[in-house]
Amino acid sequence: MVQNKSAIFLKYPTEYPVAGEHIDIQSKELTVELEDNDVLLRNLYFSLDPYMRGRMRNAKSYVAGFQIGEAMSGYGVSEVIESKNDAYPVGTIVSGFTGWQEYSVIPGASGLRVLPGARESPIPLSAYLGVLGMPGLTAYASLKIIGKPKAGETIFVSAAAGAVGQLVGQMGKKLGLRVVGSAGSDDKVDYLINELKFDAAFNYKKNGTILENLKRAAPEGIDIYYENVGGETLEAALEVMKDHGRVIACGMISQYNTQQPYGIRNLHHIVSKRIVMQGFIASDFVGESGAFGKDVGSWLVNKEIIYREDVAEGIDASPEAFVGMLQGKNFGKAVVKIADL
Amino acid sequence: MVQNKSAIFLKYPTEYPVAGEHIDIQSKELTVELEDNDVLLRNLYFSLDPYMRGRMRNAKSYVAGFQIGEAMSGYGVSEVIESKNDAYPVGTIVSGFTGWQEYSVIPGASGLRVLPGARESPIPLSAYLGVLGMPGLTAYASLKIIGKPKAGETIFVSAAAGAVGQLVGQMGKKLGLRVVGSAGSDDKVDYLINELKFDAAFNYKKNGTILENLKRAAPEGIDIYYENVGGETLEAALEVMKDHGRVIACGMISQYNTQQPYGIRNLHHIVSKRIVMQGFIASDFVGESGAFGKDVGSWLVNKEIIYREDVAEGIDASPEAFVGMLQGKNFGKAVVKIADL
Ligand SMILES: NC(=O)c1ccc[n+]([C@@H]2O[C@H](COP(=O)([O-])OP(=O)(O)OC[C@H]3O[C@@H](n4cnc5c(N)ncnc54)[C@H](OP(=O)(O)O)[C@@H]3O)[C@@H](O)[C@H]2O)c1
Ligand SMILES: NC(=O)c1ccc[n+]([C@@H]2O[C@H](COP(=O)([O-])OP(=O)(O)OC[C@H]3O[C@@H](n4cnc5c(N)ncnc54)[C@H](OP(=O)(O)O)[C@@H]3O)[C@@H](O)[C@H]2O)c1
Repeated sequence: MVQNKSAIFLKYPTEYPVAGEHIDIQSKELTVELEDNDVLLRNLYFSLDPYMRGRMRNAKSYVAGFQIGEAMSGYGVSEVIESKNDAYPVGTIVSGFTGWQEYSVIPGASGLRVLPGARESPIPLSAYLGVLGMPGLTAYASLKIIGKPKAGETIFVSAAAGAVGQLVGQMGKKLGLRVVGSAGSDDKVDYLINELKFDAAFNYKKNGTILENLKRAAPEGIDIYYENVGGETLEAALEVMKDHGRVIACGMISQYNTQQPYGIRNLHHIVSKRIVMQGFIASDFVGESGAFGKDVGSWLVNKEIIYREDVAEGIDASPEAFVGMLQGKNFGKAVVKIADL
Repeated sequence: MVQNKSAIFLKYPTEYPVAGEHIDIQSKELTVELEDNDVLLRNLYFSLDPYMRGRMRNAKSYVAGFQIGEAMSGYGVSEVIESKNDAYPVGTIVSGFTGWQEYSVIPGASGLRVLPGARESPIPLSAYLGVLGMPGLTAYASLKIIGKPKAGETIFVSAAAGAVGQLVGQMGKKLGLRVVGSAGSDDKVDYLINELKFDAAFNYKKNGTILENLKRAAPEGIDIYYENVGGETLEAALEVMKDHGRVIACGMISQYNTQQPYGIRNLHHIVSKRIVMQGFIASDFVGESGAFGKDVGSWLVNKEIIYREDVAEGIDASPEAFVGMLQGKNFGKAVVKIADL
């Protein structure tokens, strides 16, 4: 029996969740009685992702909702500390679907992926939650498959300093695109221009409307819109999109925490400009995992791309860090570090 | 010199155009001095199409705007009555881009297509403006190429009793789809069910919201939405769409005559349901013309499909008929008959 601190889902929010009200930390006793093939994990990192806001709803969605009174859950990186599964001996480092908690029992070790050489690798464990994890695969596969980028084209990426946006922008440069980004602070915009080498970027909260900003940053129009934000940003993107443009519909975070969704009034451009707008879920692209791991892994090792993380320390910090990520307080991929290896 | 009655574009409308105010009939003298390769046409039929409303704007669009003081123009069927072009001898029946007028001089016979055997054919000339013309090609090619229909799926067609909608629905049945339609009157709904053999249809102006109507007509959800209307109908379609659904973005006529565009608030379904929404212009599908003419021509001759036209008599009736089409007063493809063959 161990004490297990967890972040518990308490209540359905209607707008932004509030730490302490909708999610709070509780310590529970965990009885560890492993059956055949089960493992006990000591969790090291877990990921904070926008889609989790969708799981805090009392409605059918593409992922099951969180259960009131249970720990929040999501991708994490962990160490096996007790095992009845030969494929996952004690000491193995794994990534998989774990809880926002210090320890997790995983029946049948279901869905756990061994990270070979992770202890010795120059790549930090947290990267498997970001640039080398689900957000990375999302960016990599959707840009290639839905975006159909051609050298010389212009791409606009919203939430560009975030987990997905950082990789989209840098991959865009590698593919010979002109890359334009938007983000919610001047620091993030500086990072896009000076570190990630975007061709242009703007703070969508300043200097006029988003459309005005976008027209200044992409006076020639855009061929691809990498959609992370929705609302006014999507409307602006459709306005400046060129004929045969593509909208990679990855997410619409500006609409996740409001009861008053923004109405998009210029979808007629989809007809007259022959736009393709296509949505997807990261898991649609499991078939790309091999190519993704190889390409992005080598780009990282060769320092051809960089990435930034925003690491909250300790499980106690996780509710606040999650809400902060939804509000744009994260600068880079939002993760929580629970323990050292 | 002949007297040439024409429908002249007088003024940019902001909402519905008004016959007499924005378009009016004028008689002008036409000096016929043909140069080499020119032809003089006696116009027999011309087409009234929703996209023409887009040409009545003082703004850049995918088709050039109408010129104030000039005749309205569009597709027509005509007889060559004077010719300096050996490919188009006197008596030839052609379709092409003509004016809303009794006679047209076509420099170089540019864009004219000979309709061989048209005098003897059982197919009426007006069909080349509808089911065998641009709206037909639109329906045929976009349903196949963008819709990717699979037998057993459900398609929802808006403006289903119109020029494009009629063919989409009947093709849908041929392809083994469950076909659901919406239209703006009970007569049209009866026609969809009883003549075109739709599986379900509703009058979108009655019996609750469009979403309520659509849920009753397609309780199993829809796989394909053939989008002719936009606005509230699009929002309803996204709401009931199934995973991996396709939106064939053909037109959004509910938005053409208003200064207050409807804001679509549920585009997030495009992400979570992995929807593809794709726009197009009929001319993108010229490559399909051969297959289209062959398939639809034989379906017509074999009475496997039917179609309905709404024929206004005489050029004087054309402004009113055009405005009526925009308002849904047409029942079937809207055409104007100017003269008998
Ligand atoms: N389809 C999929 O499978 C899939 C997978 C992963 C992610 N996604 C989506 O991709 C998007 C980015 O996710 P991520 O993991 O990379 O998160 P992230 O960008 O690292 O973090 C979220 C960011 O969204 C921005 N944001 C929040 N509210 C906003 C608003 N009202 N307007 C504009 N920006 C706002 C904030 O940055 P600013 O400071 O710039 O405002 C915030 O930092 C999200 O929409 C997410 O749902 C989808
Ligand atoms: N992309 C392309 O290349 C292309 C080519 C051809 C046509 N189109 C588009 O396809 C659509 C249908 O064109 P069509 O030629 O077949 O015309 P149509 O359907 O024969 O005539 C237009 C019909 O639209 C309906 N309508 C008008 N206002 C409406 C509103 N506010 N809400 C709902 N329905 C409304 C009316 O029928 P109800 O009585 O049912 O309201 C009217 O009869 C249009 O949007 C057009 O722009 C696009």
